[in-house]
Amino acid sequence: MTYTLYYWPTIQGRGEFVRLALEEAGADYDDVGRGPTGPDFAAVAAILEEETACPPFAPPVLRDGDRVIAQTANILLYLGARHGLAPADEAGRIWTHQLQLTLADWVDEIHDTHHPLGPSLYYEDQKPESARRAEAFRAERLPKFMGYFERVLDAVTGDVAGLAGPELTYADLSLFQVVEGLRYAFPRAMARAERDCPRVTALHARVRARPRIAVYLESERRIPFNEDGIFRHYPELDEG
Amino acid sequence: MTYTLYYWPTIQGRGEFVRLALEEAGADYDDVGRGPTGPDFAAVAAILEEETACPPFAPPVLRDGDRVIAQTANILLYLGARHGLAPADEAGRIWTHQLQLTLADWVDEIHDTHHPLGPSLYYEDQKPESARRAEAFRAERLPKFMGYFERVLDAVTGDVAGLAGPELTYADLSLFQVVEGLRYAFPRAMARAERDCPRVTALHARVRARPRIAVYLESERRIPFNEDGIFRHYPELDEG
Repeated sequence: MTYTLYYWPTIQGRGEFVRLALEEAGADYDDVGRGPTGPDFAAVAAILEEETACPPFAPPVLRDGDRVIAQTANILLYLGARHGLAPADEAGRIWTHQLQLTLADWVDEIHDTHHPLGPSLYYEDQKPESARRAEAFRAERLPKFMGYFERVLDAVTGDVAGLAGPELTYADLSLFQVVEGLRYAFPRAMARAERDCPRVTALHARVRARPRIAVYLESERRIPFNEDGIFRHYPELDEG
Repeated sequence: MTYTLYYWPTIQGRGEFVRLALEEAGADYDDVGRGPTGPDFAAVAAILEEETACPPFAPPVLRDGDRVIAQTANILLYLGARHGLAPADEAGRIWTHQLQLTLADWVDEIHDTHHPLGPSLYYEDQKPESARRAEAFRAERLPKFMGYFERVLDAVTGDVAGLAGPELTYADLSLFQVVEGLRYAFPRAMARAERDCPRVTALHARVRARPRIAVYLESERRIPFNEDGIFRHYPELDEG
C-alpha cells in the first residue's frame, strides 16, 4: 500500500506531523511535492483543484487509494487506527485525538508569533506586532502548554510511557516535533520552559531514539527548519 | 443518560458548537456554568483542576459518566457517533470530521480579527492591529472559506442535503453557527460574501428550521451574541 502525501516541499510545516507518523509506521509513501528534479509546488496545488466529493481546503492532504483526506489531526486519526499509532479502544482513541487537537492549538499560537496579522502579510510587514505577540507567548502561553503536557505525562505510569499510555501514539510524535521546533525557534525561552518539564524533555528524547525516527531525522527526507515554516528562529522574538 | 457540559456561561463561544449538537440530538445535559442563581464560572473552572487521567486543557469539556472529553471537534466526533450526527461508515465519519476541523480553522481566524496579538490582551489594547487583520479577513479569508463550503455543497446532490450527504451532521450545525455569527459580527462583509454562496445561505436556513434547533434558538438556553465571545460586532472592523 502506497500513500500519496501532498504538502509543500520546502518546509516541515503541518505536513511534518503526518510525515513523522508515516515514517514511524514504516509506511510506503510518495511525498509528491518533493519531485525527482526538485520542489514541485504544482503537484501539491493540483490536489486542491481536483474534482472530488471530498475536496480539501488546504494541504496537508493524504491519498490512500480512492480516499482523499485532509486536516492534519484528521489524517493522524486515520493513520493512527491503521498503523497502531493510537489505542484500539474508543476511549484511548478519543483521548489521543484530544491531545493532538491541543497540540494543534499550540502550533497555531506558535505560528501566530510571527504572523499575528494573519497569513496575508509577510513577517517583515508585521514585526512590531510579532514582538508583542511573542512576548505574551513566551511569558504565558509557552509555560502553560508545557506545564499541561508535563501534567499529562506525570499521570502516566512508567518511564517508557507516552502521553496516552505505554504504547507510542501519533500524539507523542507530534509533541516531539513541537519540542524540536520550539528549541529551534525559541532556544532561550524553551530552555527556561524545559527546566520545569523534565517528563516532556524525556519523552522528546525517547521519540528521537526510535529506530525509524532516528533514521528519518538523519535522512534527506527530513527538511531542515527554516524561516518559511511554522517554527522560525527570529532572535528578536526570543528575547526578554 | 445525562451529559454535563463545562463551558463559560456568558458566551456562546466554542461551547455553542457542542450545545447545538446536544440540542439537535435531544440529549439531556446539564450546562453547569449556567447555575440556578446565575453564572457559575467556578463550576466550569473546577473541571480543569480535577484529578483525572485525561485532563482537559480548556473548556468546552463534556462529561459522560466516567468519561471526560475535551476539544470541541473531538467532543463532536464522540457525540456524532452516539446520536446519528455523522455518517456511520468510516469514510463519512472522517469526511465530516475534516469539515469540522476546517470550520475550526475558520473560527480561529474569526477570533483573531479582534485578538491578533493573542488572548493575553483585551481588544481595546490591540485595536489598530485588529483593523489590519480584519481587513485581510474581509478581503481574502472570508470569501475563501465561504467559497470552499459553497463548493462542497455544490457537489452534494439534492436540496435537502447537508455538507456530508443527505443526513444532517454536526458539521452542518457548526456551519449554521458560523454563518449566524458572521452575520452578527460582520453584517456588511457577510452580506457581500453570501451573494456568491446561495447554497451556504440555504443550508443555514434549513438548519435554523430544524424543530429542535428552532425551539432552542428561541429559548433562554441560547445566550445572545455579545462582545465577549468569538463573534463580536465591532462596526469599525466591518468597514471597507
